[in-house]
Amino acid sequence: MATPIAIVGASEATAEAVTAAEALGAFLATAGATIICGGLGGVMAAACRGAKSVGGTTVGILPGRDRREANEWVDIVIASGLGEARNVLVVASAAAVIAVDGEYGTLSEIALALRARIPVIGVGTWSLTRPDGERDSGIVPIEDPQEAAAMALRLASTVTQ
Amino acid sequence: MATPIAIVGASEATAEAVTAAEALGAFLATAGATIICGGLGGVMAAACRGAKSVGGTTVGILPGRDRREANEWVDIVIASGLGEARNVLVVASAAAVIAVDGEYGTLSEIALALRARIPVIGVGTWSLTRPDGERDSGIVPIEDPQEAAAMALRLASTVTQ
Amino acid sequence: MATPIAIVGASEATAEAVTAAEALGAFLATAGATIICGGLGGVMAAACRGAKSVGGTTVGILPGRDRREANEWVDIVIASGLGEARNVLVVASAAAVIAVDGEYGTLSEIALALRARIPVIGVGTWSLTRPDGERDSGIVPIEDPQEAAAMALRLASTVTQ
Amino acid sequence: MATPIAIVGASEATAEAVTAAEALGAFLATAGATIICGGLGGVMAAACRGAKSVGGTTVGILPGRDRREANEWVDIVIASGLGEARNVLVVASAAAVIAVDGEYGTLSEIALALRARIPVIGVGTWSLTRPDGERDSGIVPIEDPQEAAAMALRLASTVTQ
Repeated sequence: MATPIAIVGASEATAEAVTAAEALGAFLATAGATIICGGLGGVMAAACRGAKSVGGTTVGILPGRDRREANEWVDIVIASGLGEARNVLVVASAAAVIAVDGEYGTLSEIALALRARIPVIGVGTWSLTRPDGERDSGIVPIEDPQEAAAMALRLASTVTQ
Repeated sequence: MATPIAIVGASEATAEAVTAAEALGAFLATAGATIICGGLGGVMAAACRGAKSVGGTTVGILPGRDRREANEWVDIVIASGLGEARNVLVVASAAAVIAVDGEYGTLSEIALALRARIPVIGVGTWSLTRPDGERDSGIVPIEDPQEAAAMALRLASTVTQ
Repeated sequence: MATPIAIVGASEATAEAVTAAEALGAFLATAGATIICGGLGGVMAAACRGAKSVGGTTVGILPGRDRREANEWVDIVIASGLGEARNVLVVASAAAVIAVDGEYGTLSEIALALRARIPVIGVGTWSLTRPDGERDSGIVPIEDPQEAAAMALRLASTVTQ
Repeated sequence: MATPIAIVGASEATAEAVTAAEALGAFLATAGATIICGGLGGVMAAACRGAKSVGGTTVGILPGRDRREANEWVDIVIASGLGEARNVLVVASAAAVIAVDGEYGTLSEIALALRARIPVIGVGTWSLTRPDGERDSGIVPIEDPQEAAAMALRLASTVTQ
């Protein structure tokens, strides 16, 4: 079974985020990973497009019930109908999560992954200050997509889930 | 994108149900469909085994969070952590559902599919009498796996979801 | 903590079903139970109206995110946003379930309750024939609302959940 | 229908967080609000205890299926069985959210609320730096529980959900 890696980010993304997500998808798929995402546009579409460009496999877990909402590079569509609760499934189905840029939905996926002790790599994403004022160290920040992909695979291999 | 067909049934299944599910998985995968199931044993494992025997693709949407609970013939594991609420996703992700034998969990999947206007074919499964005493006609009963698979694909092609 | 009893049924209900649901709500609330339902109209609204007519407490677990979709007799609104997956919560939150008449959604709630070993009383609802051709005995059929309410409370008291 | 306000925070909480949550529960219940929470210990139990000390109403949406896991000050138990996906329901059922201290689960609730445009008041909780390096202004930070409760009620009244 291929290692599932989630790539999370906003549906309306900057050019830099799209470029990074596409590179991440390609690097991870080349290494044999399956890409898990929220199935929509922006970072999600870019990650899937990158993975498909090298013949990879992609899974999109949609918030809605209509499979046609998936971007065209999704192989396996899960039409959850759960709304934002589908964010829980995106991260729970992954052995590691890479967050690229992102809005509040992405932040929720980061938090849900850390809550479930799933490793999170951040590529130009949120940073977090804990209630006691200390910088939170949960997200591993790596700007280079190739290095981020390699780290995700390394951390995924250590997860005994 | 391949047509997703769900095969639902109990995790502890009779020999007949296992044989039927394995044949269904093989017929459907041969026809190019992707198999969606609950990811566990019994009918679910048999359906996946049948699909993999002909090189098909299988998706297992687990009730729990532990990916290792998936049967060995699942390609794509969705570790939902939603308990029985994952039944909603199994049927919502399919263009048609085939129910084989089954216990109450299977009955819930039949009902959820019919509620969402997703076609349901029954292979030796529950039959339903409506509150007004009339036999419900929602389930299309077909005993032969090859015919059931063909009907599922035909009905799936009519679903404009 | 009051005993939670779910009353499930269709949002478009017959006059008989509405009358029965209203009586059930009143009997159960008089006995001190909290009414759990799907929060919408028809049987759900009637059950809540009956409970409020005697000063009871009502909970509505909506499929959508908009609290204003709840009927006016719901005290506590859970705006789940989960679609039909909210049916799992309606039954899981109850110590017993009473199904009144009903469509496929109600059938799913009956099945999910039986799957979770939560007692189900049926007032003019579905009847079920198992895959082996035997009549399923999971639903306790009782036509009189007062007797159905009493049975729900009795069975609820035996559930050690 | 009373205004529902969610109080979110960790199940293992500091003495300060417990004191703040208890005061918040009491202030909000005195003002007629219903308290929504995750139903477990720590901040959740303190918020419910505070609300009940002044005769308020409390709702606990549990991650698990066992109603007995609810703290003793919960009036209405929703045994969701959804795991962390229940966090979505806690915030979606509220007209405003108050986060007290908190771990990653609380962070997910903050993010999910902001995603859904539900106001969030922070009492000694996380602070967030956006991907572009700017401080995020989504959380309204207020240290004093009475002021935080008043702000939650004011913001809740502006939400047209």
